[in-house]
Amino acid sequence: MPSTTHGYAAKSSTAPLAPFSFERRDPGAKDVAIAILFCGVCHSDLHTAHGEWEGTLYPCVPGHEIVGRVTAVGADVSKFQVGDIAGVGCMVDSCGQCASCADGEEQYCEGTGFVGTYNGPDPVLGGHTFGGYSDHIVVDEGFCLKVTHHERDLAAVAPLLCAGITTYSPLRHWKVGPGQKVGIVGLGGLGHMGVKIAAAMGAEVYVFSTSPGKREDARRLGARDLIVSRDEAEMAAHANSFDFILNTVAAPHDLDPFVNLLKRDGTMTLVGVPAEPHPSPSVGGLVFRRRAIAGSLIGGIAETQEMLDFCNQHGLTADIEMIRMDEINTAYDRMVKSDVKYRFVIDMQSLQAA
Amino acid sequence: MPSTTHGYAAKSSTAPLAPFSFERRDPGAKDVAIAILFCGVCHSDLHTAHGEWEGTLYPCVPGHEIVGRVTAVGADVSKFQVGDIAGVGCMVDSCGQCASCADGEEQYCEGTGFVGTYNGPDPVLGGHTFGGYSDHIVVDEGFCLKVTHHERDLAAVAPLLCAGITTYSPLRHWKVGPGQKVGIVGLGGLGHMGVKIAAAMGAEVYVFSTSPGKREDARRLGARDLIVSRDEAEMAAHANSFDFILNTVAAPHDLDPFVNLLKRDGTMTLVGVPAEPHPSPSVGGLVFRRRAIAGSLIGGIAETQEMLDFCNQHGLTADIEMIRMDEINTAYDRMVKSDVKYRFVIDMQSLQAA
Repeated sequence: MPSTTHGYAAKSSTAPLAPFSFERRDPGAKDVAIAILFCGVCHSDLHTAHGEWEGTLYPCVPGHEIVGRVTAVGADVSKFQVGDIAGVGCMVDSCGQCASCADGEEQYCEGTGFVGTYNGPDPVLGGHTFGGYSDHIVVDEGFCLKVTHHERDLAAVAPLLCAGITTYSPLRHWKVGPGQKVGIVGLGGLGHMGVKIAAAMGAEVYVFSTSPGKREDARRLGARDLIVSRDEAEMAAHANSFDFILNTVAAPHDLDPFVNLLKRDGTMTLVGVPAEPHPSPSVGGLVFRRRAIAGSLIGGIAETQEMLDFCNQHGLTADIEMIRMDEINTAYDRMVKSDVKYRFVIDMQSLQAA
Repeated sequence: MPSTTHGYAAKSSTAPLAPFSFERRDPGAKDVAIAILFCGVCHSDLHTAHGEWEGTLYPCVPGHEIVGRVTAVGADVSKFQVGDIAGVGCMVDSCGQCASCADGEEQYCEGTGFVGTYNGPDPVLGGHTFGGYSDHIVVDEGFCLKVTHHERDLAAVAPLLCAGITTYSPLRHWKVGPGQKVGIVGLGGLGHMGVKIAAAMGAEVYVFSTSPGKREDARRLGARDLIVSRDEAEMAAHANSFDFILNTVAAPHDLDPFVNLLKRDGTMTLVGVPAEPHPSPSVGGLVFRRRAIAGSLIGGIAETQEMLDFCNQHGLTADIEMIRMDEINTAYDRMVKSDVKYRFVIDMQSLQAA
């Protein structure tokens, strides 16, 4: 029998998030049931809830940066036991058959496409999936992550499940490491994790920001310095010098000033998808230094586990501001103004208390 | 004493090319003097002569697909002897000191920039360099190539010095080989060499063209088939299937239909620089398959030698139409209409005869 779950949902694109009860499946043989302790608040949550991207299904329960305690496991589950701390990120299923799934790159599943933790097609109950703004969740163990950080850090671990892997995966894929100069464009939820992770990988890291006021923060997070991207002289001083740039900014902006800071054979990888296109990048900027502009989407499950282990080993978590579940609409308003350092995390105990 | 050279020059952006005499340096200790036998006609020649790019210096003697016979060598020249057949491509010098020069990637020289075979700063005589639409040329041996093709093929070898290396270099850099599906966008001077070279590298090659009438030619050149890029159904049948696409089209066009045919982790490399920007490519097309759009510029000198040797080994030359020097203006008119299969080559004997 499915069990009743309490959460917060948007009932339409204009409605604020409000209490909502729905059903989860009982754990099947390969499922893990998790009592959610913390859920990070991603910009995707806000865009989806507000219907700013196509295809939002209502009621919409966002949340894909989930950390919780295992409360039950199916008969065939081998990786998790009741009482373990588990994480769930952006995906809860994929076809398991295609080349990308076979390669452990489920985020690029070419079969069914991956099933999003929310707003995806629920493969068991039908309808659509409901995310982590809720008191519990049931997920195939193949999409559950082991969290080994100290329990006092679990709230700050939650954002690693999206912001962490979204930055770790391209930094790893493009082989960032010691001796390299790496840029991170944008110092928000994604960017602040990009700085921490790239620095932990041994790179010399610079933050590009339009806000000179973030310089001290950038340094504290592990960057060598902040480069004010609107300052042409500061930018020119770094021409042709970056091995890799990770661009976390989803708002449309001119890519050329960043491309022009790449060395020969350098790549700038975009992890934000703007609602309107960026201005068309200069082809000359690519051709005359054999540079590339690429994209990257979250990361695979095995790589997400690798990222969690890497972060634990290097003592990395997100910089967070904890909120109660009933503060989510205010939090969204503040996110739109970039007024958060650097990720809101919902204390899911506050849902029970409400 | 500098020696008088006879050639053809544009004296302004609106003037047709006409006979023009100028001076070349006497060969220095490291120089090779070459009597030019054949010179290919590249679109860059036309754009430069017509002042369609910024910075044309007049009089302009175009030509950077040069094959000729060595007539004199300096005291320190070791690679060439009088009587050898030599080639000269797009470059005649570079700083020799920077990281790219040290890596044999002189085309990306970060010191002085490479010195173009024409319209570059002449490092010896001052003024600007004059290209291969002329009866002889004097070039540092470090920028001369050994041509080992049979002498009957020398006219058809000339276009390898630009069209050949411009396609070979990215195909090699992105590791095209057996088991890969490779697309070539555009079947002109560059594209037809891209097809031949990619096929010789062992890839399964498809040509993208707006002209279904080029299908038989595409197959003859070594492609598996031609895909009509305006035919949405033909394009859709190849979605997510290409490992690599080499885009030779310099006219502004929508890149997304090609990007969307790349597999996960596929790259489309642009070798044409449009005068006006392409429509801005979709970021989603990059992010959701970790694809990249890159650029590539000609190739280094060592790689150009490798390409010439590869082409000789595989029996590859360009498909050419031979012209006399005094037919160059008509040839330009025909090139604007893509009315050439696939490269004009000037028989430089016709200059002496004129």
